[in-house]
Amino acid sequence: MQLSAIGVPVEELDTPALLLDLDRFEQNIAKMSDHFQSRGVAWRPHAKAFKSPAIAHQLRKAGAIGVTVAKVSEAEVMAAAGIEDILIAHLVVGPHKTKRLAALQRYADVKATVDHPDHVAPLGEAARTAGVTIGILVDVDLGLHRCGVASAADALKLASLVSETPGLRFDGLMGYEGHTLMIPDHDQKQAAIQEAIGTLLTAKDVVERAGLTCRIISAGGTGSYQYTADLPGITEIQAGGGIFACQYYTQVCGVEGHRPALAVLATVVSRPAADRAILDIGHKSVSQYRTPPILRDYDNCPVIGLSAEHAVVELAPGEDFPIGKKVAVIPGYSDFTFVLHDRVLGHRWGLVEVVWPLLARGMLQ
Amino acid sequence: MQLSAIGVPVEELDTPALLLDLDRFEQNIAKMSDHFQSRGVAWRPHAKAFKSPAIAHQLRKAGAIGVTVAKVSEAEVMAAAGIEDILIAHLVVGPHKTKRLAALQRYADVKATVDHPDHVAPLGEAARTAGVTIGILVDVDLGLHRCGVASAADALKLASLVSETPGLRFDGLMGYEGHTLMIPDHDQKQAAIQEAIGTLLTAKDVVERAGLTCRIISAGGTGSYQYTADLPGITEIQAGGGIFACQYYTQVCGVEGHRPALAVLATVVSRPAADRAILDIGHKSVSQYRTPPILRDYDNCPVIGLSAEHAVVELAPGEDFPIGKKVAVIPGYSDFTFVLHDRVLGHRWGLVEVVWPLLARGMLQ
Repeated sequence: MQLSAIGVPVEELDTPALLLDLDRFEQNIAKMSDHFQSRGVAWRPHAKAFKSPAIAHQLRKAGAIGVTVAKVSEAEVMAAAGIEDILIAHLVVGPHKTKRLAALQRYADVKATVDHPDHVAPLGEAARTAGVTIGILVDVDLGLHRCGVASAADALKLASLVSETPGLRFDGLMGYEGHTLMIPDHDQKQAAIQEAIGTLLTAKDVVERAGLTCRIISAGGTGSYQYTADLPGITEIQAGGGIFACQYYTQVCGVEGHRPALAVLATVVSRPAADRAILDIGHKSVSQYRTPPILRDYDNCPVIGLSAEHAVVELAPGEDFPIGKKVAVIPGYSDFTFVLHDRVLGHRWGLVEVVWPLLARGMLQ
Repeated sequence: MQLSAIGVPVEELDTPALLLDLDRFEQNIAKMSDHFQSRGVAWRPHAKAFKSPAIAHQLRKAGAIGVTVAKVSEAEVMAAAGIEDILIAHLVVGPHKTKRLAALQRYADVKATVDHPDHVAPLGEAARTAGVTIGILVDVDLGLHRCGVASAADALKLASLVSETPGLRFDGLMGYEGHTLMIPDHDQKQAAIQEAIGTLLTAKDVVERAGLTCRIISAGGTGSYQYTADLPGITEIQAGGGIFACQYYTQVCGVEGHRPALAVLATVVSRPAADRAILDIGHKSVSQYRTPPILRDYDNCPVIGLSAEHAVVELAPGEDFPIGKKVAVIPGYSDFTFVLHDRVLGHRWGLVEVVWPLLARGMLQ
């Protein structure tokens, strides 16, 4: 008897199961890869979106230069799987993490960011102790007001400090225009992104005029890449989640030309009323961040309620949802759905083709 | 060199880490256990809250009769860990799950619920095929309008069908007054819970007058137990999460006399402005469901923003949050925080005392 899901018809899978439509997935990958290639900008997809080295390799084969991650432990998973160019787009703080980051350099080029002088000495010391060099980007606040230095002058000060610190290598700048993603109007969004990226490029000019080379200027996410990649001076874009095209990206961020590739397969487990069906999914298997999940094949039957392990679907008149029926549900947000699952099942022509374990799920440190 | 966290001072742990203050945890357990014992009602805590057999055993030692779970796979984890009385407070649908539920009966008494005639025959068939008996509760809608039969007459019909089905054992009724949890006014909440539980007890009367015995009448959650346990006729309460006393229960549901026992340890990783600190936690390590997380020891410094891997803290004037400082953050909702972690670290007197793996995390089916 076969215990692997590979070759099994999708409708025979037990639920909830995280599904990836491989044809659509590959179309989305090609769309993003073409977009970046045609603009001469590199692609460093954020692996926080999918947590899977196998998916990282699919993107690498399509032209990605490596990955972005948020955590040292995610970088360890990616490096162990053979991804050799990694950016930790976060601050690496504390002796446990600096030691791990330094040790990892012998297996991959794992860069980190800094936004304060206090970050620099511990990273340099860890690098020297391990006998390695750590590449560093200075994080610049582009208006999101989360992390990042507040001015080009501060960026220069920090870049100089990094470049003078033995064990560290100044690689350039990073910024994230995350505050612009949900601007509905095209022109306003474009203007906001231009202003944000302008802040990053101004910092680049100031740093480079002082004689320091920024070989990397990294920015962008799925919600902004269709604008940001057009701006000269950016060397790489971190967009990752667009390969799945969940509701958040297509409906809230207005990303165009992507087709939803990710779904959670669910079973109708209760029919308490003629206009109500209950699915065996909820907050613990699908995200409704910023926008509710939707039924992929039933536009007329919205998900009107979500609790931990139940989804309430309002049935349109005449829709027949018998107990046991399976439906595909497109998540509100793919990022926050992946972290709830241990594997994703890729399918084509109605059959499971591949099972990818989400090896970086739970890598919080 | 020691690789286990046991014995390590809490402030030396790497972050994010899920922490359990064992003194407070035990106080909360004692409070709930005493509450139920003094009212002569059994305690069947919902293990969806914590996903850990080790915690289930702590509750069993404090008087719990077993656990509630939401999924067959959670029941498998609990049964394999020696928990012998389990209620799956959900519908069990589909051949994969009915087969697993039946097979599990030889290791624990694992009851399931039904709310539709279509649930009954497949469960009976699975039980007979495996040569076992499955205990069944009929789920009654108490006003939440999620699952459950809509009337006492329907409850009786379904109870009769169950009791006539070889392989099944009719054990009683279940309901959940989940729509009453957040009613702020005490008297209004009490009235709403009385009305909801009244629906369940009416169904019980109708079923029992027809000659069927309800040995179990199961209801209640943490957000309602301080009312529901007072109502005669209820035999057991499913409240689980109160042992952690997250913000959702204490602030949103008004649960009284519990002290917050759960926290996510976080590190200050960025200080981009005098009034702003950034922590290395976010939606992927702490839940803000219904209410934001708070800093346990800094009432004056609210969490004003949460993204996937960042929390933004607004610092009160004069607060010193240097980069590298560690702070304990009480989650918005404990349930949705546990599913993001692989283990919880129990501590007492400043030292880690126990590491409990969350073996039922990811058990979605």
